[in-house]
Amino acid sequence: MARAIELAERGMNTTAPNPRVGCVLARDGDIIAEGWHEQAGGPHAEVMALAALEDPQAARGAIAYVTLEPCSHHGRTPPCADALVAAGVAEVVIAATDPNPSVNGAGVERLRAAGIACRTGLLGEQAEALNPGFILRMREGRPFVRVKLAQSLDGRIALGNGASQWITGPEARADVQAWRARASAILTGIGTVAMDDPSLNVRLEGHEGQPLRVIVDSRWRTPAAARTLALPGEVLVAGCADEPVPDLLAVSPATLLPLPAAPGTAAGTAPVRVDLHALMAALAARECNEVHVEAGGQLCGALLAAGLVDELMVYIAPCLLGSDGLPSFVLAPLEDMAARPGFDWIDRQMFGDDLRIRLRPQYRDS
Amino acid sequence: MARAIELAERGMNTTAPNPRVGCVLARDGDIIAEGWHEQAGGPHAEVMALAALEDPQAARGAIAYVTLEPCSHHGRTPPCADALVAAGVAEVVIAATDPNPSVNGAGVERLRAAGIACRTGLLGEQAEALNPGFILRMREGRPFVRVKLAQSLDGRIALGNGASQWITGPEARADVQAWRARASAILTGIGTVAMDDPSLNVRLEGHEGQPLRVIVDSRWRTPAAARTLALPGEVLVAGCADEPVPDLLAVSPATLLPLPAAPGTAAGTAPVRVDLHALMAALAARECNEVHVEAGGQLCGALLAAGLVDELMVYIAPCLLGSDGLPSFVLAPLEDMAARPGFDWIDRQMFGDDLRIRLRPQYRDS
Repeated sequence: MARAIELAERGMNTTAPNPRVGCVLARDGDIIAEGWHEQAGGPHAEVMALAALEDPQAARGAIAYVTLEPCSHHGRTPPCADALVAAGVAEVVIAATDPNPSVNGAGVERLRAAGIACRTGLLGEQAEALNPGFILRMREGRPFVRVKLAQSLDGRIALGNGASQWITGPEARADVQAWRARASAILTGIGTVAMDDPSLNVRLEGHEGQPLRVIVDSRWRTPAAARTLALPGEVLVAGCADEPVPDLLAVSPATLLPLPAAPGTAAGTAPVRVDLHALMAALAARECNEVHVEAGGQLCGALLAAGLVDELMVYIAPCLLGSDGLPSFVLAPLEDMAARPGFDWIDRQMFGDDLRIRLRPQYRDS
Repeated sequence: MARAIELAERGMNTTAPNPRVGCVLARDGDIIAEGWHEQAGGPHAEVMALAALEDPQAARGAIAYVTLEPCSHHGRTPPCADALVAAGVAEVVIAATDPNPSVNGAGVERLRAAGIACRTGLLGEQAEALNPGFILRMREGRPFVRVKLAQSLDGRIALGNGASQWITGPEARADVQAWRARASAILTGIGTVAMDDPSLNVRLEGHEGQPLRVIVDSRWRTPAAARTLALPGEVLVAGCADEPVPDLLAVSPATLLPLPAAPGTAAGTAPVRVDLHALMAALAARECNEVHVEAGGQLCGALLAAGLVDELMVYIAPCLLGSDGLPSFVLAPLEDMAARPGFDWIDRQMFGDDLRIRLRPQYRDS
């Protein structure tokens, strides 16, 4: 199963909106075939593994290790559970069940109905970690949101005058490209667009296609000349339905997504008025699994306050930007230490001179 | 020599104002005796090692490994170089030369004059790292300054209302005690005294004595009822000579240290007016080797701006305190990213849920 998880990881940047899945066929403890899901619309991992057999008869009596429950429904491809039955495997070991309402145990049922032994849960946690976005989207109807920051030792993401290029070094910035590449969408706010005019695209050699780019822009202030609008790929500007859209933006290449305003905010007030839950529902409806956020303190603070941060990834550069530097999270003042947002560590790793830390907000547990 | 360095570390909290020194006597590659300097006024490492020999004649022809150049002058004890000569060792291997103007090569000279082979520099860097404060005091007439902070992921050392107990967990706070214990002085500012009323003492089981406690208090506002004034050990209040001292403070147990004001500051202005270079010179004159700073953003910022931070030690707790939280370093606004203070990493280590990072300011190299 560990090998099947490795195989699944090969589809890290290419399977969306589908999950990353790997499959290993084994007989007498030896691997006889391997497969993984490479691309949405293409064959699933199980079918790839069966096709990798020189002799299709070799599947008879074999054990299939699959990182995600084989599908039981006709999507863009026929059900994998049927393919495993037809191939005559003796047993299917599954890491994680598929929370997709069209599967959700039906794959296991179909296999068992055909007399195939099924076990689930082997390395289940690691297998689920392959697909945090797909799983959250299936279970809660929203994408997995990863907030990336680059900050100084004193927690500042830019100088007081807005300058921030570059806080971190080339190794950290290259790592960011890999995280962008695996995301379905890259999200920022109008403040960052106005300040940095970022590209927000994936610049990795050999990478095909671009994640959706999303600008949270409550009052539709995105300049028609913003750099990101001119680059290949779709840009979604998410603003408030009750705010007027300027003509120039209306005729720009951007797709406009009018959303309700967050409850209790009046037009023209609050830096982030867009209802962020509505935004995430809209992104889930567009089959976004993982949303990669690179934004300023206003939007990051609003996402956290809305309970919409699933992972925090901070690159800490060994420098100070000083007390008038811009903060990473603009939050309402706290009166009590007990109310401070807490996190659980995921990992820590150096990239050149910068330390990357990843954490999980604790509100996800409560 | 690696063993001699280990031995020297046993004196970590007890040798001040003397350096930490270890000594190993070896013959034919076997260790025949060990010693380390335990306490100022007590025998030096070399004498301890010689005394550990069952048969004093065994020193004849042996090799002595010493982490610091043997002293050549009569201090509180007779010169160690003479003791090694009298014992008849054949060779002395020295890690670091002693920058003390009373030694500074004279120990090596005396040994060589007596026909003893001398080598220096073996594990010299590790040996110097035993005594950053002693070495800096001898070379530059000031102590080694280690700034300790406890902060959130967003670089805040307290809530906006000043609450900060506790940002970090018990493991991190226990580690801080060990750093306090090795310091000659613990330094804070009047802001921290007014806000937190800290004890600033060492609370380690079995620890004897207390480092000097120093409050930087330009305008002599330390309350006579401050908790730290009532605890065992000396408290030094460092204020500006041109500011009036209140009667209550004058009759308190605190030792008052009037200092010049930093150039260009007028009475009643600037949060930190005390000339910090003059303060450090005064602490060096009191034979302080390592100064451990636990202070707020004003004093930490002023120390950094004065070029007086030799090491930065930050405990990062996995929480956010928000954008109205108090900053770790109050610095003059930077106009240009190239002007940001840079650091080199020393190490990173977890203490419970908190990450401790240690860094060295890059201005020390320039």
